[in-house]
Amino acid sequence: MSKYKLLFRGTAFSSKSSKEIEILKDHLFCIHDDGKIEKIVAPEDPNYQVLLDAYQGKDNFYSLAEGQYILPGFIDLHVHAPQWTQSGTALDIPLYDWLNTYTFPLESKFSDLDFAYEVYNDLVRTLLANGTTTALYFATIHKESSLLLARICAERGQRGLVGKVVMDDPEQNPENYRDADTKAALADTEEFILAVKALSKTVKQGVFPVVTPRFIPSCTDEALQGLGELAEKYDAYVQSHCSESDWAHGYVRDRFRKNDAYALHDFGLLRDKSVMAHCNFLSDDDADLFAETGTAVAHCPISNAYFANSVIPVAHLHEKGVEIGLGTDISGGFSPSLFDNIRQAVMSSRMLEDGVNPALPAEDRGVPGSRITVNEAFYLATAGGGESLSLPVGRIQENYAWDVQIIDTKLPTAKLPIFDPNEDLNDVFQKMLYLTRPENIREVWVQGEKVHSR
Amino acid sequence: MSKYKLLFRGTAFSSKSSKEIEILKDHLFCIHDDGKIEKIVAPEDPNYQVLLDAYQGKDNFYSLAEGQYILPGFIDLHVHAPQWTQSGTALDIPLYDWLNTYTFPLESKFSDLDFAYEVYNDLVRTLLANGTTTALYFATIHKESSLLLARICAERGQRGLVGKVVMDDPEQNPENYRDADTKAALADTEEFILAVKALSKTVKQGVFPVVTPRFIPSCTDEALQGLGELAEKYDAYVQSHCSESDWAHGYVRDRFRKNDAYALHDFGLLRDKSVMAHCNFLSDDDADLFAETGTAVAHCPISNAYFANSVIPVAHLHEKGVEIGLGTDISGGFSPSLFDNIRQAVMSSRMLEDGVNPALPAEDRGVPGSRITVNEAFYLATAGGGESLSLPVGRIQENYAWDVQIIDTKLPTAKLPIFDPNEDLNDVFQKMLYLTRPENIREVWVQGEKVHSR
Ligand SMILES: [Zn+2]
Ligand SMILES: [Zn+2]
Repeated sequence: MSKYKLLFRGTAFSSKSSKEIEILKDHLFCIHDDGKIEKIVAPEDPNYQVLLDAYQGKDNFYSLAEGQYILPGFIDLHVHAPQWTQSGTALDIPLYDWLNTYTFPLESKFSDLDFAYEVYNDLVRTLLANGTTTALYFATIHKESSLLLARICAERGQRGLVGKVVMDDPEQNPENYRDADTKAALADTEEFILAVKALSKTVKQGVFPVVTPRFIPSCTDEALQGLGELAEKYDAYVQSHCSESDWAHGYVRDRFRKNDAYALHDFGLLRDKSVMAHCNFLSDDDADLFAETGTAVAHCPISNAYFANSVIPVAHLHEKGVEIGLGTDISGGFSPSLFDNIRQAVMSSRMLEDGVNPALPAEDRGVPGSRITVNEAFYLATAGGGESLSLPVGRIQENYAWDVQIIDTKLPTAKLPIFDPNEDLNDVFQKMLYLTRPENIREVWVQGEKVHSR
Repeated sequence: MSKYKLLFRGTAFSSKSSKEIEILKDHLFCIHDDGKIEKIVAPEDPNYQVLLDAYQGKDNFYSLAEGQYILPGFIDLHVHAPQWTQSGTALDIPLYDWLNTYTFPLESKFSDLDFAYEVYNDLVRTLLANGTTTALYFATIHKESSLLLARICAERGQRGLVGKVVMDDPEQNPENYRDADTKAALADTEEFILAVKALSKTVKQGVFPVVTPRFIPSCTDEALQGLGELAEKYDAYVQSHCSESDWAHGYVRDRFRKNDAYALHDFGLLRDKSVMAHCNFLSDDDADLFAETGTAVAHCPISNAYFANSVIPVAHLHEKGVEIGLGTDISGGFSPSLFDNIRQAVMSSRMLEDGVNPALPAEDRGVPGSRITVNEAFYLATAGGGESLSLPVGRIQENYAWDVQIIDTKLPTAKLPIFDPNEDLNDVFQKMLYLTRPENIREVWVQGEKVHSR
């Protein structure tokens, strides 16, 4: 009977579909040595008591206290790791200036491995403390320092997907922050892929290399072509930005006379393991192409309020079958928390539905049918992220990784406003999503290992 | 020399104007027995060293640690205290249904003083822990339980402005949650005013009664008229809702053939000490009327994303000279934190400026010139709130109350991403506004008394 590595008893919430949650009330969660959920046992199952008798009181048995609940760990589909140092600053300027005046000079400093270590280590620790168990990172153009980020993820127990950024076009990038040339950009990317693959062999939760053209404006055609070939050769993840703002969307249309999505596709960059950030200006044809190729959208609602000139129509894209997850987009988005981004995803969708300009009549103001519920925003941060990455994460379900966060709603310093001891668990769930603070996140587990506690 | 009650040494941030902040670097703040700031002394002042010599090492001398900063306490201009129990739930339905299906049945339970005590005590504690030193509350229709809220504010040291809610129209309000009749509504309001005024005599920070017609749709003409007269008679604060949503705005136009603002004014309810929540659909004439009468707007950006069908044009109203502060609008807004509302105020203003619908051309999408900066949003939460209430609060300035929050940016469990020991204090300020969590708020003081610490 003592074959499981861990046994948890408690109440968990997980997405049943993009709109519905499933409540696993007072279940047992049996975790295999490999860190996956081997078995979930309901209280009415005859095995329940047998398992309880076998595990209760043992070191590997965890029973959640009253007021504590299990949520899947969050999956952050878009983080610029070096930008953590400027989170919350310089948000009052347009994307183009923000990149050139603040962001590129900052990122260029990550050739310094000591500085990179300090920032990356703090960021990975912070994301874990915010419940993020899987993260898809842009590092910088520097191969060594990008590899350092993958190593930090490996050591801290986070499932990190890391890209060495490619920006090779000498016309478009500052002299002190770009790849030496196209050949070097591609060679560095290939070496980086091989190094991360080698590292991953000893990492329980996995770390993954990601082919990462920053965005089309930074890259030559040759680099984009070569990166598409590397993605194919290694069946690697791909990430970039797509149709984020009027400026970025317009730049690609000027250069290729087609939308970002089709241009990326021509270079072999839209694949099942591709995640494109923002995508606010996808046309319906672009969306169909995403759905056909299995390309996912990283929706970054906080960042979009500053830089995307619009709200992405999540409900519409879901209807068209596009995979969507959630991203913080540090530091275009100021918050390292996907809880904050869940809240903003709901609010932004409401603002798209109702419109924003009170001087317009109601019927001309918004886009009816655009709202998403908090259940759907939760789906984006969990199961939707897992599907975007084609990884068995983001659900509390058998054969999924035990990637979870344990939320305490009764913490004396940050008690949630739950006054009825029999409050409906759907309401408890909504209160958790809207009101959880990092201090309510008492433990975070990745692949069956505890990686954060307080 | 030992004439001050308290002496603080540290760096403080305060609004110089609605757009500019003032940084008082390493100043001394000398607090009088009455809880006001008597003197602020800059390091270059000859008295600085004299004061330091006199106070250093004494019990009433507080020197902030490295990485700690002083902000003014926040002023929350719109809180429905009983709704704290449902914060974060039921946000997926329109205002009218939300009120009738969820909110009114909940508020009716506050006739029970034990229940009211439990909820109100937890709410006041929570708001203080979130840095809110002054709050303008809607309680319920119940006189005794509304008075209990004022008592809890008095005891916990918060500057509470509390209204017993009036909803007397039998046609518009549920049978089990409305005033017995118009006469009773007015008599209860007057008794409530007198009771809070009596209570306030022994309360250092002050508590204040507020004349509180819920909103025009809940009240008869007679009640509105009578409440205007009570406001005049006692020179009392007034609060209500004004032109919040298409529905509410349209209701008043149908009933009075004029906008909410003018209808309220006809009843004597727009006064210098009036604060109206939301006000999304103010016309320019309405705004002029607000400016002339000294009526302030309580801007509730989180709540507005759910219920106001639009974004209020804060920048435009500021240009027209309207006083504006910030409100959480618990529980139309889910968060008890004005930090969260500062962030949303900035984001919503950006979304108004750029527009939301990506299917529209950029030039038809938004309302140019609508953005506010984080400095302006900070102003709303502090100095703007103080001006709205005509109270000497919301600034770190001589003759203002010592209402402050002490933020620790270096707390090990919630360190802000500040890696440069010489980081520009403007950037530190922005990081604080965007990234402070309740756990970073180490102490909260109201009128020279410590009311929260952790
Ligand atoms: Zn990005
Ligand atoms: Zn309200």
